[in-house]
Amino acid sequence: MLAAGGEFAYIDWLRRQTPADPRVLIGPGDDTAAVRWPGGGTCLVTTDMLLEGSCFRLAEAGARRVGRKAMAVNLSDIAAMAGRPIAAVVSVGLPRQAGRALAEELYLGLRDVADQFDTALVGGDTNSWDGPLVVAVTVLGEPTGRGPVRRGGAQPGDWLLVTGGLGGSIRGKHLDFTPRVREAQQLHALVELHAMIDISDGLARDLHHICVESGCGAVLEAEAIPIAAAVGQLANGRSPLDHALSDGEDFELVFAVSPTDGQRLLATQPVPGIQLTRIGECVAEGFWLEQGGQRRPLTPAGYEHPLA
Amino acid sequence: MLAAGGEFAYIDWLRRQTPADPRVLIGPGDDTAAVRWPGGGTCLVTTDMLLEGSCFRLAEAGARRVGRKAMAVNLSDIAAMAGRPIAAVVSVGLPRQAGRALAEELYLGLRDVADQFDTALVGGDTNSWDGPLVVAVTVLGEPTGRGPVRRGGAQPGDWLLVTGGLGGSIRGKHLDFTPRVREAQQLHALVELHAMIDISDGLARDLHHICVESGCGAVLEAEAIPIAAAVGQLANGRSPLDHALSDGEDFELVFAVSPTDGQRLLATQPVPGIQLTRIGECVAEGFWLEQGGQRRPLTPAGYEHPLA
Repeated sequence: MLAAGGEFAYIDWLRRQTPADPRVLIGPGDDTAAVRWPGGGTCLVTTDMLLEGSCFRLAEAGARRVGRKAMAVNLSDIAAMAGRPIAAVVSVGLPRQAGRALAEELYLGLRDVADQFDTALVGGDTNSWDGPLVVAVTVLGEPTGRGPVRRGGAQPGDWLLVTGGLGGSIRGKHLDFTPRVREAQQLHALVELHAMIDISDGLARDLHHICVESGCGAVLEAEAIPIAAAVGQLANGRSPLDHALSDGEDFELVFAVSPTDGQRLLATQPVPGIQLTRIGECVAEGFWLEQGGQRRPLTPAGYEHPLA
Repeated sequence: MLAAGGEFAYIDWLRRQTPADPRVLIGPGDDTAAVRWPGGGTCLVTTDMLLEGSCFRLAEAGARRVGRKAMAVNLSDIAAMAGRPIAAVVSVGLPRQAGRALAEELYLGLRDVADQFDTALVGGDTNSWDGPLVVAVTVLGEPTGRGPVRRGGAQPGDWLLVTGGLGGSIRGKHLDFTPRVREAQQLHALVELHAMIDISDGLARDLHHICVESGCGAVLEAEAIPIAAAVGQLANGRSPLDHALSDGEDFELVFAVSPTDGQRLLATQPVPGIQLTRIGECVAEGFWLEQGGQRRPLTPAGYEHPLA
């Protein structure tokens, strides 16, 4: 299902173009980059752009929710590294006729979520143009505890856990989700997270990134995958499991831990209000779905921006 | 000429909305923000978005030059603080039919300028959509020498100096300019820069920002303003002086220094290949143009993105 020459092929190309740099601890290809900051410390940095008509419908969502989502998707990337957000900047392209009211609503939405996660909105760039609404947010953060949790540290035998339920985010969660910033820090303080990613393109696709970066495989247990209640509200002929595997924008976290740590997390369920679920484990190779006692190859299907 | 409810009125509103935060050394309303970095040091951060049809014509400019400009406008903001750029991230919205070739050319342009200024391109977000090309770059940097040079430190009596020549950037410089990163650091090391800004919206408008932030006025000497050769290639009935005062996107620096330091800079011309020119001085109040021995009020006219 990976479109030839699509977004991920382009990212692979980018990574090959990127020279080694002693200042850069983590370059393109993880949830955030990490830069060794002069004077001390590490700077996590991530950027995400939302485009009207592609990532949201302005008339449906309203500008305030678009602002919230624009901030939240970036905070979700900081969460995926178990980082602590510090500051954000925002570049906006406003439809020329929409004017000041839209700009203010959008800003208030950005601030809603930034304030909730103690992130200072420190600057930006405001433009108007003849095109639709575009919002690009960049968030800076710092690593916590054992340092940034990357995609590449999973090992065969690791358990795979996920926060919350999956699928059906189109029913509203894709706009109104809570980035798992606090949950990630809490987990990171409790156990050694071997690898982690936020689910933006669908469980299968995002877990596949962990496998590729870690040089291992994975087997998902179909009956174990927690399906969000919103999936039941969709009637489109696709199975609930398919939704949970391939719907994008859940913005939950999937992570790999040792079986011992996994057992401990499941037994104690330490994150208030968020169910942790074991959905499978890492294996030496292959990408599998186990269902009714049978193992069959899984396609890393999910959402990818096509680049023709 | 300031459109009611335009970009700058919106920025004023934003600034009033922004709560004080001990982590934030410089918030919205300067060329970059500055964040106290945990672990040590200061992080300068700036973002600028380029929108097809508004900031460039893709068919004319080509994707590589658009990439160069997108990086350069951000580096110009780092220059305006006399900062040193360190890292950049890029969010892109690509026209769906344009595909991989456009994405690669754009990236190579970004890298051309990033490499030239030792700035690591550490990550980004690539999207395709049904709209035109949008590129949002965020650059992180660190202050140099005496710290970030702000807009607000000019004093009555200060001399106003400018790098290079002004006006007519539409003839090509608006795409191919060199951000004055090295020049700013060099000046910052030599003298105490009281206030500085890069000329993105036109000399009059950008100098007016310095006056407002510094709580002083300024008088510009018409005969002293260095007019770029490109102005001579324009035949549109506007005077060369008008072009130099109000054309945007020169990306030169205008700065305020003590008369002693100003004399020293003019006598030594310490910046290789760049002429420094005294264009006027700061006064207690008012915003003036002196021409033929007569002083008349100057309008801070230049480019502003209208917000209806």
